[in-house]
Amino acid sequence: MKSKRIGKQTVKLTNPPTITAWASIVGKKEGEGPLRSEFDRISEDSYFGQSTWEKGESEMLKQCFHLVCDKAKISSCELDYILSGDLLNQCVGSAFAMRDSNVPYFGLYGACSTMAESMSLGAMLVDGGFAHKVCAATSSHFCSSERQFRLPLEYGGQRTPTAQWTVTGSGAVVLSDTGAGPYVTHITTGKIVDKGITDGANMGAAMAPSAYDTLSTHFKDTGRSPAYYDAIFTGDLGLIGHRAVLEQFQKDGYDLTDRYFDCGLLMFDLIKQDVHAGASGCGCAASVLCSHILNNLKSGLWKRVLFSATGALLSSTSTMQGLSIPGICHAVSIESELCNKEEI
Amino acid sequence: MKSKRIGKQTVKLTNPPTITAWASIVGKKEGEGPLRSEFDRISEDSYFGQSTWEKGESEMLKQCFHLVCDKAKISSCELDYILSGDLLNQCVGSAFAMRDSNVPYFGLYGACSTMAESMSLGAMLVDGGFAHKVCAATSSHFCSSERQFRLPLEYGGQRTPTAQWTVTGSGAVVLSDTGAGPYVTHITTGKIVDKGITDGANMGAAMAPSAYDTLSTHFKDTGRSPAYYDAIFTGDLGLIGHRAVLEQFQKDGYDLTDRYFDCGLLMFDLIKQDVHAGASGCGCAASVLCSHILNNLKSGLWKRVLFSATGALLSSTSTMQGLSIPGICHAVSIESELCNKEEI
Repeated sequence: MKSKRIGKQTVKLTNPPTITAWASIVGKKEGEGPLRSEFDRISEDSYFGQSTWEKGESEMLKQCFHLVCDKAKISSCELDYILSGDLLNQCVGSAFAMRDSNVPYFGLYGACSTMAESMSLGAMLVDGGFAHKVCAATSSHFCSSERQFRLPLEYGGQRTPTAQWTVTGSGAVVLSDTGAGPYVTHITTGKIVDKGITDGANMGAAMAPSAYDTLSTHFKDTGRSPAYYDAIFTGDLGLIGHRAVLEQFQKDGYDLTDRYFDCGLLMFDLIKQDVHAGASGCGCAASVLCSHILNNLKSGLWKRVLFSATGALLSSTSTMQGLSIPGICHAVSIESELCNKEEI
Repeated sequence: MKSKRIGKQTVKLTNPPTITAWASIVGKKEGEGPLRSEFDRISEDSYFGQSTWEKGESEMLKQCFHLVCDKAKISSCELDYILSGDLLNQCVGSAFAMRDSNVPYFGLYGACSTMAESMSLGAMLVDGGFAHKVCAATSSHFCSSERQFRLPLEYGGQRTPTAQWTVTGSGAVVLSDTGAGPYVTHITTGKIVDKGITDGANMGAAMAPSAYDTLSTHFKDTGRSPAYYDAIFTGDLGLIGHRAVLEQFQKDGYDLTDRYFDCGLLMFDLIKQDVHAGASGCGCAASVLCSHILNNLKSGLWKRVLFSATGALLSSTSTMQGLSIPGICHAVSIESELCNKEEI
C-alpha cells in the first residue's frame, strides 16, 4: 500500500470522495441572520417539537440526516457509516438522533471541530475502500449548550464582550465514491494546541493558535500557498480569534484579508443580533459549510476551498479545576475540479 | 479502489495492521483482582499524583500512552495519529492526557466501546495507507465516573445487585503497517441498538442486545462460525449481559460457553471484591485487552480472538429526561497469523 501521507499531518486522497449532498437546518435566530436564504430549513420552534432542548437538538440533527439522504437520493440504509458527534455530555445529541438509523455508527468528540473531523475520517474511509457512502454530521443548540456549559438561561446572565453565541444548527454531508464534485482532496489533522488561555468566555483566543497551527501546517505539507484557495474558512473563532489568525499570517508575510473568513462571523449580524464576538458551536461551522460554502462551490463562485473547523476541548469540570483550554483544528480541502493526475 | 466491505457492517483488511505494542495501567482495586499479574503497572494512588480524580484519570492515560510508545520502541512523534476518548464530559480525560503529545488527534466518543472503536478506525487508517503508525487508547476512572454519572462517592449510596463497578484503568495499543502479528484482520462496526431499557444501574441488560447484534452480524458477514475463534470477548456486559448474550446464541444453536468471555467478569473477583454484577467502563475492555488478551495471543495460547467492546450511549441528562439507553458494540478480529491470501 502506497502511503498517502504528505508532510507530518496531511494526507492526499488518491480516490477523492465526492460530496454528493449537503443539508442544513437551523434555529430561528440563525434564520434571521445574513445567511437566511441559504439554509435548507429554519425552525421557528427552538424545541423542534420536543419537550426539552436536548431532545430538540437530537430531533434537529435527525431531520438534517434524513434531509441529506433525500437530497443525495439514497435511503439511509445505503450508507456504510455515520460519523457524528456534538457538544452535549456523552454526545447524546448524536446518539439519539442516529438511534433508529440502522447504520454502523462512529461517535466522535471534537467539540466545534466535529464537522471537519467527521468529514476527515469519513473521506478516508471512502478513499480507502472501506465505504461507498458515509454521512458526516454534527449539531449544536444554544439553549442546551448554555445551560450545560454556562448558566441556566433563566438567570439572564450578563455576557462578556468576548463571548460568542452558540448556534442552534446542524449540518450533514454525504460522501461517496462515485459522482461529480465537489471533492475532498486533502486532509490535515490537527494536534492539540494549548497556549494557556483559561477564560471560558473567550473561546476565540483559546482556539486561534490551533487554527494557525493547522492552516500553516497544511500550506507547508501541501506546498500550496494561501493564494491557492479561493476561500479559507475557520469554524467559530469569532472577532478575536479571526483577527489573531490574520495577524499571525501577516507576520509570516501573507495577507489573507481578501480570502480568509470565519463561519462565526458570517452567521449573525454581530451588532443588530447582539451576539458580541460572533457565533460558535459545532453547528456553526457545519451549517455554514452545508449552505453558504458548498452552495458557492456548486455555483462555481469558488473552485477551491479550505474548510477548517476549530474546537475547544474543555469541560465545565476542567475549567472549574483551573485547567487551561486545549484547542484543536482539522482542515479539509474541498475542490470542485480534480487537477491533473500528478496533482491529485 | 477495490471495496474492502464484506456484508453489511464488516470490512476485511487487505494490509492487516500489526498490533506492535500494548500497555495497561490500572488502579489499586483492579490490581487486587485475578488479572493482577498481567497489567503493566498498578497504582496504589487513585489520584495518580494529581489533585483531582479527573486530572488523575488524564495522568493515568498519559502514562499509559508513554508506556505503549516505549514498549513499541518509538518516540511519540513517530505516530501519525492518536485516536482516543473516554467517559468524562467532553472527553477531557483524553484531551488533557494527549495535550502535549504533538500528534494529530481524533477524539472519539463511544462510551465503553471506545477501545474497539479507536482500534477500528486506527486499523483502517493504517490499512488504507493514511498512516504508518497510530495509537488507539482509552481510560475510565471509578471515582470520576461515579460522581459524574451517579452520586458523589461521599454519599456512600447503596448499589443495586445489577450495578457494575467502573474500572480505574487505561489501555493503549500501537498499530503499525510493519512487523509481525498479532494482526487486526476484520472490523465489524456496530449500529445503535436500543431495546427500551431505562435502568441506568443495569447497563449489562441495556448493552447486551447491541453485543448480540454485532457479534451475530460479524459471523454472518465473514461466514465464520463462533468456533473459528479461540476466544470471544465482550467489553463490560457483566453477569446479566453476558448471560443474555450466551442465551441468545443458544437459541441460534451455538453453545459459546467454552469460548465466550466478558472483560467485566474477568477484572474482579465478583464476590470477594464486592462488585455486584461485574466491572464496567472504557478502561475495563481496554485494560483486559492490553494485558490478558494480547498477552495470550502473544504466548500462543490463542491464535484467533474476536474483541468486541460495548458502550451505553446515555448521559445523566438523557436518563433524567426519561429516555432509554442506546447501546453500541464494535468488534475487531485479532489473529496471530495471517491465513492464506484468499482468506486474508
